[in-house]
Amino acid sequence: MDLFFHDTIDIKNPAFVFSDEESRHLSKVLRKQPGDLVAVTDGKGLEVHIQIQNISSRKTNGHLVETIVHPAPKHQTHIAIAPTKNIVRLEWFLEKATEIGIHRITPLLCQHSERKVIKSDRLTKILQAALKQSQQFHLPQLDDLISFETFVAQQKKGYIAHCNTGEKFDLADLAPTEQSNCILIGPEGDFSIDEITFAEKNNFQTISLGSQRLRTETAALVACHTLSLIHRNI
Amino acid sequence: MDLFFHDTIDIKNPAFVFSDEESRHLSKVLRKQPGDLVAVTDGKGLEVHIQIQNISSRKTNGHLVETIVHPAPKHQTHIAIAPTKNIVRLEWFLEKATEIGIHRITPLLCQHSERKVIKSDRLTKILQAALKQSQQFHLPQLDDLISFETFVAQQKKGYIAHCNTGEKFDLADLAPTEQSNCILIGPEGDFSIDEITFAEKNNFQTISLGSQRLRTETAALVACHTLSLIHRNI
Repeated sequence: MDLFFHDTIDIKNPAFVFSDEESRHLSKVLRKQPGDLVAVTDGKGLEVHIQIQNISSRKTNGHLVETIVHPAPKHQTHIAIAPTKNIVRLEWFLEKATEIGIHRITPLLCQHSERKVIKSDRLTKILQAALKQSQQFHLPQLDDLISFETFVAQQKKGYIAHCNTGEKFDLADLAPTEQSNCILIGPEGDFSIDEITFAEKNNFQTISLGSQRLRTETAALVACHTLSLIHRNI
Repeated sequence: MDLFFHDTIDIKNPAFVFSDEESRHLSKVLRKQPGDLVAVTDGKGLEVHIQIQNISSRKTNGHLVETIVHPAPKHQTHIAIAPTKNIVRLEWFLEKATEIGIHRITPLLCQHSERKVIKSDRLTKILQAALKQSQQFHLPQLDDLISFETFVAQQKKGYIAHCNTGEKFDLADLAPTEQSNCILIGPEGDFSIDEITFAEKNNFQTISLGSQRLRTETAALVACHTLSLIHRNI
């Protein structure tokens, strides 16, 4: 069933109105007819099925015929990542991480960050599109850009992936079982020594994601997928 | 150390000449000086270290000071994938799979394929760039586009990932231990029922890559990374 996204859904009101853009898409692209069913999610676990009553490229409405509440995953992945110089690489990560499953993404401003601004609206649209495409119902939380030190100081514990020397355990071997796991991924120039020291003092454990030298967005995706494989077994 | 790629390296000849393009890059971008070391790989496991003797933007040469042979990985990942309608998505997969580690990629022409041609030269350049960037020494093998049935009939066994119903085991649970594992990934419209039946008759086992609905290139990368995690433990 085609899936749409609405920030808020009032399940007490059976009448449902689609936006102008959705109406165009429903009538011109999907060529829906009265009586057809489409699904809508609020990205907070709610899925409702709407039966179309009136459809045109300007206005489409229907009524709510089914409500499903999808529970939040038991284990949550939280990736804090320095946005890449080429924003397309971060956008790829957001799309793929949403498909695979991620709870929260925090863009980090690091000492070696070349990119110091992001357009949250555009990134949120990518998350919503990936959510719909992959037929999921929990939209990842996208935080505002925050400085590395402020963010790390706010966390109780976590993991930091970097390319510097020192004792490291593979994330796959550590197999963390916490309800939420936060992993820090640095910019193209990696975290600075000061940042690594600061994170370790704040209860962040240094991890390895394998012997290869991975790009920022690949490292983030590898971390996300490794956690997703660990979480499915616990 | 910066890594360059040459199709063939003659280790019996200590004199080494860089191409015009490499000479420009070495002198103008990397600002190398006589005496500096750079690494070169042939993508077949060989790494040589070259000490620069003469450098200019037109011609750079040096001599071979060290030869290292990197053994091939014990376990090999082979992904046979229907190229995506938007070729950028396949290119993204090639780059990421090279970073993570993949032995062979076979582009498949399937019944539901919307893309029926690929530019192998361009794709090979992406593989070479990703190999250099991730500091690896085994270039993935990129096959010519081949029809699904011809390819499947050539294989002894393998795995097929599809979204149709039927009994499936998670790839992560199967944890295949063969020396080389081949996984088939379908186009945007999935494999046809005929193709799935044909594969199963030819000793291909149906697998699942998780409960999410993944895009073609995401499914391929998830399969590649799952195998890489399995291979590191056996």
